[in-house]
Amino acid sequence: MAKLIKEISKKAGLLPGVLIHIGEKKAEKVKITITEYDEMHFHEQEAKSIEECFLFKDKNRSTVAWINIDGIHQSDILGKLGECFGLHPLIVEDIMNTDQRPKMEDFEEYSYIALKTLHFNGKHGEIITEQVSLIVGENFVISFQEQEVDIFHTIRDRIRTNKGRIKKMGADYLAYCLLDAIIDNYFIIIETLGEKIESLEDELVSNPTPKVLRAIYNLKRNLILLRRSVWPLREVIGVLEKGESLRFKESTRIYFKDIYDHTIHIIDILETFREMVAGMLEIYLSSISYRLNAVIKVLTMIATIFMPLTFIVGIYGMNFKYMPELEWRWGEPTVLLIMAIIGIAMVYYFKKKKW
Amino acid sequence: MAKLIKEISKKAGLLPGVLIHIGEKKAEKVKITITEYDEMHFHEQEAKSIEECFLFKDKNRSTVAWINIDGIHQSDILGKLGECFGLHPLIVEDIMNTDQRPKMEDFEEYSYIALKTLHFNGKHGEIITEQVSLIVGENFVISFQEQEVDIFHTIRDRIRTNKGRIKKMGADYLAYCLLDAIIDNYFIIIETLGEKIESLEDELVSNPTPKVLRAIYNLKRNLILLRRSVWPLREVIGVLEKGESLRFKESTRIYFKDIYDHTIHIIDILETFREMVAGMLEIYLSSISYRLNAVIKVLTMIATIFMPLTFIVGIYGMNFKYMPELEWRWGEPTVLLIMAIIGIAMVYYFKKKKW
Amino acid sequence: MAKLIKEISKKAGLLPGVLIHIGEKKAEKVKITITEYDEMHFHEQEAKSIEECFLFKDKNRSTVAWINIDGIHQSDILGKLGECFGLHPLIVEDIMNTDQRPKMEDFEEYSYIALKTLHFNGKHGEIITEQVSLIVGENFVISFQEQEVDIFHTIRDRIRTNKGRIKKMGADYLAYCLLDAIIDNYFIIIETLGEKIESLEDELVSNPTPKVLRAIYNLKRNLILLRRSVWPLREVIGVLEKGESLRFKESTRIYFKDIYDHTIHIIDILETFREMVAGMLEIYLSSISYRLNAVIKVLTMIATIFMPLTFIVGIYGMNFKYMPELEWRWGEPTVLLIMAIIGIAMVYYFKKKKW
Amino acid sequence: MAKLIKEISKKAGLLPGVLIHIGEKKAEKVKITITEYDEMHFHEQEAKSIEECFLFKDKNRSTVAWINIDGIHQSDILGKLGECFGLHPLIVEDIMNTDQRPKMEDFEEYSYIALKTLHFNGKHGEIITEQVSLIVGENFVISFQEQEVDIFHTIRDRIRTNKGRIKKMGADYLAYCLLDAIIDNYFIIIETLGEKIESLEDELVSNPTPKVLRAIYNLKRNLILLRRSVWPLREVIGVLEKGESLRFKESTRIYFKDIYDHTIHIIDILETFREMVAGMLEIYLSSISYRLNAVIKVLTMIATIFMPLTFIVGIYGMNFKYMPELEWRWGEPTVLLIMAIIGIAMVYYFKKKKW
Amino acid sequence: MAKLIKEISKKAGLLPGVLIHIGEKKAEKVKITITEYDEMHFHEQEAKSIEECFLFKDKNRSTVAWINIDGIHQSDILGKLGECFGLHPLIVEDIMNTDQRPKMEDFEEYSYIALKTLHFNGKHGEIITEQVSLIVGENFVISFQEQEVDIFHTIRDRIRTNKGRIKKMGADYLAYCLLDAIIDNYFIIIETLGEKIESLEDELVSNPTPKVLRAIYNLKRNLILLRRSVWPLREVIGVLEKGESLRFKESTRIYFKDIYDHTIHIIDILETFREMVAGMLEIYLSSISYRLNAVIKVLTMIATIFMPLTFIVGIYGMNFKYMPELEWRWGEPTVLLIMAIIGIAMVYYFKKKKW
Repeated sequence: MAKLIKEISKKAGLLPGVLIHIGEKKAEKVKITITEYDEMHFHEQEAKSIEECFLFKDKNRSTVAWINIDGIHQSDILGKLGECFGLHPLIVEDIMNTDQRPKMEDFEEYSYIALKTLHFNGKHGEIITEQVSLIVGENFVISFQEQEVDIFHTIRDRIRTNKGRIKKMGADYLAYCLLDAIIDNYFIIIETLGEKIESLEDELVSNPTPKVLRAIYNLKRNLILLRRSVWPLREVIGVLEKGESLRFKESTRIYFKDIYDHTIHIIDILETFREMVAGMLEIYLSSISYRLNAVIKVLTMIATIFMPLTFIVGIYGMNFKYMPELEWRWGEPTVLLIMAIIGIAMVYYFKKKKW
Repeated sequence: MAKLIKEISKKAGLLPGVLIHIGEKKAEKVKITITEYDEMHFHEQEAKSIEECFLFKDKNRSTVAWINIDGIHQSDILGKLGECFGLHPLIVEDIMNTDQRPKMEDFEEYSYIALKTLHFNGKHGEIITEQVSLIVGENFVISFQEQEVDIFHTIRDRIRTNKGRIKKMGADYLAYCLLDAIIDNYFIIIETLGEKIESLEDELVSNPTPKVLRAIYNLKRNLILLRRSVWPLREVIGVLEKGESLRFKESTRIYFKDIYDHTIHIIDILETFREMVAGMLEIYLSSISYRLNAVIKVLTMIATIFMPLTFIVGIYGMNFKYMPELEWRWGEPTVLLIMAIIGIAMVYYFKKKKW
Repeated sequence: MAKLIKEISKKAGLLPGVLIHIGEKKAEKVKITITEYDEMHFHEQEAKSIEECFLFKDKNRSTVAWINIDGIHQSDILGKLGECFGLHPLIVEDIMNTDQRPKMEDFEEYSYIALKTLHFNGKHGEIITEQVSLIVGENFVISFQEQEVDIFHTIRDRIRTNKGRIKKMGADYLAYCLLDAIIDNYFIIIETLGEKIESLEDELVSNPTPKVLRAIYNLKRNLILLRRSVWPLREVIGVLEKGESLRFKESTRIYFKDIYDHTIHIIDILETFREMVAGMLEIYLSSISYRLNAVIKVLTMIATIFMPLTFIVGIYGMNFKYMPELEWRWGEPTVLLIMAIIGIAMVYYFKKKKW
Repeated sequence: MAKLIKEISKKAGLLPGVLIHIGEKKAEKVKITITEYDEMHFHEQEAKSIEECFLFKDKNRSTVAWINIDGIHQSDILGKLGECFGLHPLIVEDIMNTDQRPKMEDFEEYSYIALKTLHFNGKHGEIITEQVSLIVGENFVISFQEQEVDIFHTIRDRIRTNKGRIKKMGADYLAYCLLDAIIDNYFIIIETLGEKIESLEDELVSNPTPKVLRAIYNLKRNLILLRRSVWPLREVIGVLEKGESLRFKESTRIYFKDIYDHTIHIIDILETFREMVAGMLEIYLSSISYRLNAVIKVLTMIATIFMPLTFIVGIYGMNFKYMPELEWRWGEPTVLLIMAIIGIAMVYYFKKKKW
Repeated sequence: MAKLIKEISKKAGLLPGVLIHIGEKKAEKVKITITEYDEMHFHEQEAKSIEECFLFKDKNRSTVAWINIDGIHQSDILGKLGECFGLHPLIVEDIMNTDQRPKMEDFEEYSYIALKTLHFNGKHGEIITEQVSLIVGENFVISFQEQEVDIFHTIRDRIRTNKGRIKKMGADYLAYCLLDAIIDNYFIIIETLGEKIESLEDELVSNPTPKVLRAIYNLKRNLILLRRSVWPLREVIGVLEKGESLRFKESTRIYFKDIYDHTIHIIDILETFREMVAGMLEIYLSSISYRLNAVIKVLTMIATIFMPLTFIVGIYGMNFKYMPELEWRWGEPTVLLIMAIIGIAMVYYFKKKKW
C-alpha cells in the first residue's frame, strides 16, 4: 500500500536551510525545459545546464518565461537556482522536501506555491501523490516536478499553437493555467473513486465478503490520504482568490475564483464520499449480523426438529426387558406417525413465526 | 441508483473558458420563452432563434424581460447569448456544467446564481438533481434549465393573470419569485423523505429485514446527496439576505430574508433526518443482535434438555450382558419418569432465569 | 409517533404573502383576550371581533395592552389584524405557518418573535410542539397561540393581583415575562426526560430487552426534535440579550440575559442527554453481546460434555457379534465410571477456565 | 447514581426575582463567618445574624472583608443581604438556585461569579457537584456554599498565619485565591478518574465482564457531567484573564491567566479521557466478539468431530437382520480404528487451520 | 503503560507561587551548562553553582549566552535563578511542574515557552513526554530539561564548529534552533507510528487476533496522548509566527513560519492517523463478525447433515418386534444409500447457496 509518510526523519538533527531531498528518487536526470513567449513570439528549448535559466530573472524582459524542472533530488542544481533567483534557503528546502502540506508563501520578489498531483497506481488502486512547486515572479514561472509527467503538456501545446488567451496574459495567468490543470486532474481521481463506491454499493447488498470489506478499507484509506492533499488547497487558493497576494493581478482574480470554486466542490464531494464509505461499513456489519441470524436460525430449526425425534427413537432403542410397547403390532408405525406429526408441527410453528 | 458525480473528467485537459456541456443531455431541442411585462402590459412569445433575445439587453426599456431557456447542451446558442449579454466566458462555462455547487457571483452588469432543482425518481425513490442558472440584470432575468419542467409555470401564470405584486416590481423581485418557487419545491422532497423515515421507524421495530436495511441505506444516500445541494444555498441566499449584492434593492431584502429562513429551516430538518437515520442503523443492529440472542436461547434450551436425555436413553441402549437394571420390571417406567423430571426441571430452570 | 414535519408542502406553488394555515387545526373558534393595564389600572375583556383590538395601536395611550389570540387558522382575522397593525404580509404568513424555526425579526414599528411551547403527550411520551408568536410594539404585545393553554395564565393573574414589578414596566417587560414563562416550561420537559433516562439506566443494567431499546430510540427521537426547537432560541434570545434590538429598553436587558443563561443551560443539558443516550445504545449492544456469549457458553458446555458421552454409549450399542467387552462382568459399571470421570473432568476444566 | 438535574421545575410558573432554593438542603443552619484583614491586622468572627455583615459594605474601610456563608436555603437571610449590598434580585435568585451553569456577571458595584466544587461520593464513585457563588466588591468578597466544606480553610489559615502575599493584596486577589483553591481541587478529581481509567484498561484486556462495562458507563457518565461543570469555566475565567472585568486589577491578571491555563489543561485532560473511554467501549465490544468466536469454535470442533462418529456408531446399532459386517471377527476394532482416524484427521485439520 | 497524568494533586491546597516539583525525579544532580558566543568567540563551561549564571543577565554584554539546566527538581536552585533573572514566581512554578500544556507567555524582560519532547519507551512502545522550558531574554536563552538528553547536542556542536548562520544571529535565533530541534524530533515519533499502523494494516487482513486489538488500542492511546502535546503547539508557535511577540525580530519570523508549517503538518498527520486507527477498529469488528459467520456455517452444515442421518439410523436401532423392514435382505444397503443421497443432496444444496 501507499506509504503513509515519507522518510521525513531524515531531516531531524539538521540545521535549518540545509538542502536535502526527502522522498523517493523518481527521475534519473534533472530535465530543464524553458518556454519563452509573448503575444507574438514563442521559443522552447531544453536547457543543458541550470545557468541557462539565469537570464530570465531580468525584470525588464518583455516576455514571459516558464522554466519547468523535472527531478528535484539534486541539491546542487536547486541550490544554484535558488541563489540566482534570490529564493530563501527555506523555500529551496521546501521544494526538495516532498512530504509537505500544500502551501503558499508571498515574498517581495516572488510567490511560492506547493501542491500535490495525484495518480492512480493501477495494480492496487492506491493514490500516489507527487509534489509540484511553483515559483511565480514578475515575468517568469518556475515549476518543479518529481518526474516528467504529461500534466503540463497541454498547456505547452496551447502556448505553442497560440490557442486561448494565454499568450496575451502575464506570468500570473500562466501560474493559474498550471494550477487549473492540476486541479482539473483531481476530478479524474474523484470520478474513479465515485465509480468504485458505486460498484461496491451493489456488492454490499448482494454479497458482503471480506473482499468487499478490504475494498471499503482501501477506499477509506485513499479518501483519508486524499483529504490531506486537498483540504490545505482551500487555504492556498483562497489567498489567491481573495486577492491577498499582490503578485496576482485583479484581472486574473476571477480565474482564481473559478479554481477556488472547483476546490470547494472537490472538498464537498470528498466529504460526501467519506460519509458514504462510513455508512457502507455500518451496512456491512449489519448485513453480516443479519446473515449470521439467518444461519443460526437454520441450525436451531434443524436441532429443534431432530433432537427430540432422535431422543424418541432412542427411547425405543433401549434394551429393557419389560417394554410392552415394543411388542405391539402397530408400535413402530405409531411412533413414526407421532414423530411425523411432531416434525410437521414444528415446521409449521417456524413458518408461522416467519423464521 | 443516482450517479454520485457527473462526467466531470470531460473538462480535464481543456483550457479555461472552453464551452462544453457536462451532464446528461435531457432536452432534444433548446426552447426559448420570452415573457415581457410591466405593470400594464404583458407579452409572451417563443423565440425561434437566440437573436430575438438580444434586444432585451437594452437598459432603457421600461419593461421587465424574463428569458427562459430549456436545454443547455448547445454551446453555440449559449456562446452567442453570452457574448451579446456580456457574460464572462467562465460563467457561460458554469451554466453548461451541471456538476457544480450552488453559487452566486456578482458582476457589474449582472449577477449569476446557480441552484439545483430536485425531483423524485419514482421507481427507485432516488432524488434527481437538475441545475437551474439565473442571470439577473437591471431589467431582465435569464433562466437556464436542463429540460422543460413546470416549476416556473405558476409564476408565468401569475404574471399573465396579474396576481400578486409581481408585475409592479422589478427584475430582482422576479428573481426572488423564481428562487422562492425552487426552494418551496424542496419542502415537498423533505416531506416525502420524512414520511419514508416514519414508515421505516415502524418496520424497524416490528420486522428488521434486509429490505429495511437497504431502505435505510438509500435514505442515508439521498440525505447525503441532498445535503450537497442544500448546504451551499445558505451561503448563496445569505449574500442576498444580507444585502451584500447591489443588484437587489433594499425593498426586496425582506423577501430574501424569508427564503433565507426557509433555507435554514430545510437545513435544520435535513440534519435532524440525518441524525434519525444514523440512530436507525444503530437500532437495527441492536435489534438484530437481540433477535440472535433469542434464537440462540431456543437452540441452547433444546440442546440442554435433549442432549442429556438422549445420553440417558443411549446408556440403556448399550448391549452389555450384565446390566441388571435392564431386567427390572419397572426399569423402563422409572427411567422415563427420571427423564421427565429432568426435562421439567430444566424447563422450570429456564423459566425462572427468564429465558 | 409525533409527526416529523407538518404539511409544509401545502405552500409550494403559492406566491409569497398568500395567507394559509399550516399545521393541525386545534382550536374551534378564535378567542381574543385583551388585557390593558398601567401601574394603577387593570382591565380585561374578551373581544367579540378583531376590530376591538385596533384602538390599542394608538401610540399615545399610556397603558400597556396585551392582546392574546388563541387559534391561528382563520386567515381573514389575521389578515385584518395584520393590516391594521401594519404587519408585513410575510410576518402574518409566518404567524399562520406552524412549521417554522424559532426566530426574531425587528421592524421599525414592531418586533416579531416566534417560539415553540412544548407538552408531553401522555400516552406515548412524545413531545408535542406548538407555536407561539409575539408582536411587540411600543405599548402593546400581541401573542398568538395554536390553542388556549394555561401557560400565560399565571402572568395574567400576576397583573390582575398586582404582584411583582410587572405593572410598573412597559410592553418589553411583558414580552420578557411571556418568554420567561415559555422557557421555564422547558425545564419541566427536561426534568421529565432526565427521569426517563435515569430509569432506563437502571433497566439497561438489569434487563436489556427490546422494550428498553425502543425507549432509548424514543428518547433519542424526542431529544432530536427538542433540539430543533431549542437551538435556534439561542440566537433569538441572544439578539435581545445583547441589546441589538432597539425595541427593548436597556433596563430590561438584564432580564433577557437571565433567560439567555437559561436557554444556554437548557442546551447544555440537552447535549448532555444526547451524549448519555448515545452511550446507552452502545452499552445496550455490548450488554446484548455479552449475554449472547454467556448463552453460547452454556450451549458449548452442554455439547462438549454430552456429545462425547453419547458417542461412547453409542459404541457399546453397536450390534457387532465379537465385542468381548460387552461380555465382561464389570463392563457397564466401568464404562459408566469412565464417562463420569470424563464428565467431571470437563466441568472442572470449564470451571478453571472461568466460563 | 447522581441526579442528572436538580428539581429545576420548581421555578416554573414563578415570576422572575422570586427567591426560592433549588437543590437539596444540605446544611441545617446557615453559618456566617467574617474574616477581616489588612497587611497588619486580622480579625475573624462568626456572625450571629446577617446584619453584622452590613457594615463591611462601606467603601471607605481600608481592610478587606471576607464573608463566607455556608447554607443557601434560607431566602430571608439572602434577601436581606442582597438588599443591603445592593444585589440585583436575579443574582440572589441565582445564588439560591444550585442547578446553574458556571457564570460571571459584572455590575457597577460588584461582580458575581458562580462555580461548582466537586467531591467523590465514596460508595458509588459518583461525582457530586456543589455550587459556590462569589460576590466580589471593592473591598469585600462574599462567598456562598451549599454546606460547610474545608476547601476554603487553607486560605483562611494562610491569612491568619500571614503566609504568602495574600494580606498585602486587595479583594480581587482574595477572589483569585478562592477560585484557585476550587480549580486546584478539580485536579484531585481528575487524577482519581485517571487512575480508574488505567485500572479499567488492564481489566479490559484480561477480563471483559459486565462489571467492567458498568464501570466504563459510570466513567462516561461522570465525564459527561463533569464536562458540564468545567467547560463554561473557560468562558468565566477567560473574561477575568483577558482583563475585561474592571473590578480586577491589572496586577492580578497574571494570576488569572494562571488559573485560565489550569482550566484549559483540565478541559484538555477531560477530552482525552472522554476519547479513551469511547475507545474502551469499542475495545470491549471487539473483545467480547472475539471471545464469542473462540467459544463457537470449540462448539463447532466438538460437533464436527463427534456428530459424524455418533452417526457411524448409530449405523452399527441398527437392527437389520442382514448386516454381514456385524458378523466379521474384526468388525468392531476396524470401525473403532476408522473412527479414531477420522477423529485425529479432524483435530489435525483444525490445528492446521489454526482454530 | 504510560501514566495518563502526573501527580498534579500535590499542588492542591498550596498557595500560588509555592515552588514544588511535579513529576518523576529523573536526574540525580542538577547540571548547568553555559555556552557563550558571538560571531567571533565561543566559550563553554559547566557551572558549579547557579550563581555563575547571574552575570549573563547583563543586557550590555555583546555575546549570546545559552544556559542549559538538566534537572528541575531542586526548588532552591530554580528559586535563586528566578529571583536573579526577575522571573515571575508563577513562571518558576510552571518550570517545575511537568504536567502542563505547552504554552508561551510574554513579559517585558523575557518570554517563557514550555514544550514537550517525546521518546519511545522501547519495551512497551509507549510515548514518554518530557517537559522543556525556555526563557528567552535580550541576549540569553535559559533552557530547562527534566534530564540530560542529546536533543540539544547537535546545536551546541554547530555553534562550536561555527556551522550555519547561528553564530551571527541573536538569542531569538538560538531559541528558534532549539524549538526546531524539538519539533524535527516529533517527525521521528510520527514516522515510527506510521510504520506501526502499516504493519497492523497487514495483520488486520490476514489474522485479526486479540494481539492486534491490543496493538490498535495502544496506538489509539499513544495518538490521544501525543495530540495533547502537539495541538497546543499550534497556538504557541502561531504567536511567534504571526510576530505578536516583540522579543522575536522580524528577520527570524520566516523561520518561525517554517516550524509553524511543520507543526500544522504534524497535526495533519496525527489526525490522519487517528482516523485510520478508528477505521481499523471497525474493520477488526467486521472481520471478526465475518469469521464468526464462517465458523457458524461449518457448524450448521455439520449439524444439518448429520442430525437427520443420526435420526434415521436411530429409527432402525429401535427394538420393536414388528419391524418388517429390518428383515429385508437389502434393508441395510437401501438405508445407507438413501442416507448417502440425503448427505450428498445437502452438500450440493450448501454449495449452491455458496456457504
